[in-house]
Amino acid sequence: MSTTAPDPATRFWSPALRGLSAYTPGEQPQGTGWVKLNTNECPYPPSPLALQRMAEAADERLRLYPDPTALALRQTIAAQHGLRPEQVFVGNGSDEVLAHAFMGLLRHGQPVLVPDISYSFYPVYCALYGVPCQPVPLDEHFRVRVADYLQPNSGIVLPNPNAPTGIALPLEDIRWLLARNTGSVLVVDEAYVDFGAESAASLVDEFPHLLVVQTLSKSRGLAGLRVGFALGHVDLIQALTTVKDSFNSYPLDRVALAGAQAALEDEAHTASLTRRIVDSREWLARELTALGFECLPSRANFLLVRHPRHSAPRLQQDLRDRKILVRHFKQPRIAEHLRITVGSQPECEALVAALRELIDPVRHRDSKVTPA
Amino acid sequence: MSTTAPDPATRFWSPALRGLSAYTPGEQPQGTGWVKLNTNECPYPPSPLALQRMAEAADERLRLYPDPTALALRQTIAAQHGLRPEQVFVGNGSDEVLAHAFMGLLRHGQPVLVPDISYSFYPVYCALYGVPCQPVPLDEHFRVRVADYLQPNSGIVLPNPNAPTGIALPLEDIRWLLARNTGSVLVVDEAYVDFGAESAASLVDEFPHLLVVQTLSKSRGLAGLRVGFALGHVDLIQALTTVKDSFNSYPLDRVALAGAQAALEDEAHTASLTRRIVDSREWLARELTALGFECLPSRANFLLVRHPRHSAPRLQQDLRDRKILVRHFKQPRIAEHLRITVGSQPECEALVAALRELIDPVRHRDSKVTPA
Repeated sequence: MSTTAPDPATRFWSPALRGLSAYTPGEQPQGTGWVKLNTNECPYPPSPLALQRMAEAADERLRLYPDPTALALRQTIAAQHGLRPEQVFVGNGSDEVLAHAFMGLLRHGQPVLVPDISYSFYPVYCALYGVPCQPVPLDEHFRVRVADYLQPNSGIVLPNPNAPTGIALPLEDIRWLLARNTGSVLVVDEAYVDFGAESAASLVDEFPHLLVVQTLSKSRGLAGLRVGFALGHVDLIQALTTVKDSFNSYPLDRVALAGAQAALEDEAHTASLTRRIVDSREWLARELTALGFECLPSRANFLLVRHPRHSAPRLQQDLRDRKILVRHFKQPRIAEHLRITVGSQPECEALVAALRELIDPVRHRDSKVTPA
Repeated sequence: MSTTAPDPATRFWSPALRGLSAYTPGEQPQGTGWVKLNTNECPYPPSPLALQRMAEAADERLRLYPDPTALALRQTIAAQHGLRPEQVFVGNGSDEVLAHAFMGLLRHGQPVLVPDISYSFYPVYCALYGVPCQPVPLDEHFRVRVADYLQPNSGIVLPNPNAPTGIALPLEDIRWLLARNTGSVLVVDEAYVDFGAESAASLVDEFPHLLVVQTLSKSRGLAGLRVGFALGHVDLIQALTTVKDSFNSYPLDRVALAGAQAALEDEAHTASLTRRIVDSREWLARELTALGFECLPSRANFLLVRHPRHSAPRLQQDLRDRKILVRHFKQPRIAEHLRITVGSQPECEALVAALRELIDPVRHRDSKVTPA
């Protein structure tokens, strides 16, 4: 067989696509009864005001295209951050916003720098758009060392807090890096910022090469609505807009626009959600520590943990057998960790109860002898 | 000034982005009182069943991500076309579906062939993904001659009916081309197919290099919901899925998934909408012809017309002054045409009344002498 004979299944594919390994989102089980701690969703419902506005938007106006500029939503976001609407871009989830940033701002020949343990979508974007990706190792405590990013690059992407570690970077570290890496864009992915980290939004007016990306999927409990946004200098926002208008003029439908705006306006609801989740996170971290887990210090709505005596894939499977889903990444350095979303307090308690059964050494030994 | 000095406003842009001319969607006026015949929207409301399902979907389940595979919606579409779900791809409007097709299937070094008068987004996709675009002239009657597409290519994109001409291509012409152009993908963009053209969906099982793209924006009256889909061989669908999963795992939110499925199920409503629009189109074509317009024979929900004695940009502006929006393209060959969406019957009548005032030679001469 000739080595140049194309695989028949991919003969019509653009060649650049053939080597692509797509991102794998967490499992979305279709049945009921699952304790779902695997995709960092919010355990509580979104703002009632948002739900009401969405139901109202489901009317005959849907025959008309949405506002392609999403101006009303951008005005709301701008006002909340003390910015102008021209400094705000909105998209179909922060994943789409990030994709447009990779396409429009990060392709300059040099590699894009990302932490080696980080959101696994970043290398996929690089592969999709043909830009090299350079993982920069976290330190031995899984922390980002910003000084390590002072090397030639097409751009830097730092999640803050980082995922799946949950560890936050002080705002002063972001500022330090922005002041030294001035020739390319720093994207700060703040998907989880509302659970206790410092947002870099306050630096947008100061640094023309800072792009801050946020989402409504986590702290607003709207993963199912697909709305994300970016804050940055008007020139950066214009790049994202040019990509969007060369790709899909209206990525946010009328219902999503209405729901997102109301959810952002209902700041009291967001504050209530995040407070409850942070409280449960602290409780869960204490309980897991008491069970012998090592928990990284999280400022997000999840914990990255490992147990010195129990295999992570095995624990994941044992939890799955009890209808509790957590996430495991087959990846160097964290192959023995589990990422556990902070659920509602009852969900966290169900998890702890299940883990207590699974890892308590006495019961565990007993159960091997006489399976229940 | 050095010729290599970058424009400060675009210094952080990916170089490939700097020459990009984005697509310009039709105007979406924010006020009321407009007769909006400029963006080929449906003048009638979408399915009541769809609206009800959307309102029901606006509930606490929005805290969870949507099904990234959109399986239920793909099953519905597949069943309606006698295909398997693996032969169906769904996306955020047919624009996103087309973008993924350009990215995933049409980049092979050779140019992509598109009609010279066609959907003006196609050359934009080519520019975005760095693939050359080769316009193939329509004949003197603005018809696609499929024999002209037998030349080296990375793929062929034919809208059927074509936009903005409205002219449909017989299914036998599509089949003829598929049988002869076997080395690359033919994308048939059927955004307007339900208004009287023949769909190539029936050829999907026969030709592994055919991709049929449709939308819910037109015949289902859901431009505001952003749902489109593609039908094709499982290998082509897998390419689109690979692009999607490398870009944004969940382009359709939970409300859109629910609404789209219900709208597709409500086939009686779609039939009613399209019948009324086709009736109004035929009425409008007769009236415009009586006013001296030349109307191309449309199988879509719009008419491309020109008047031998009246400038198109001037007519567009005069109509705008009367709060009637129609579309004009500053483009060779159609610079003296107007594209008029078929509105509701009262909207069509309002348009004809306004045009009668504007172009009646006696009144027109009078109005020049003594402006009202």
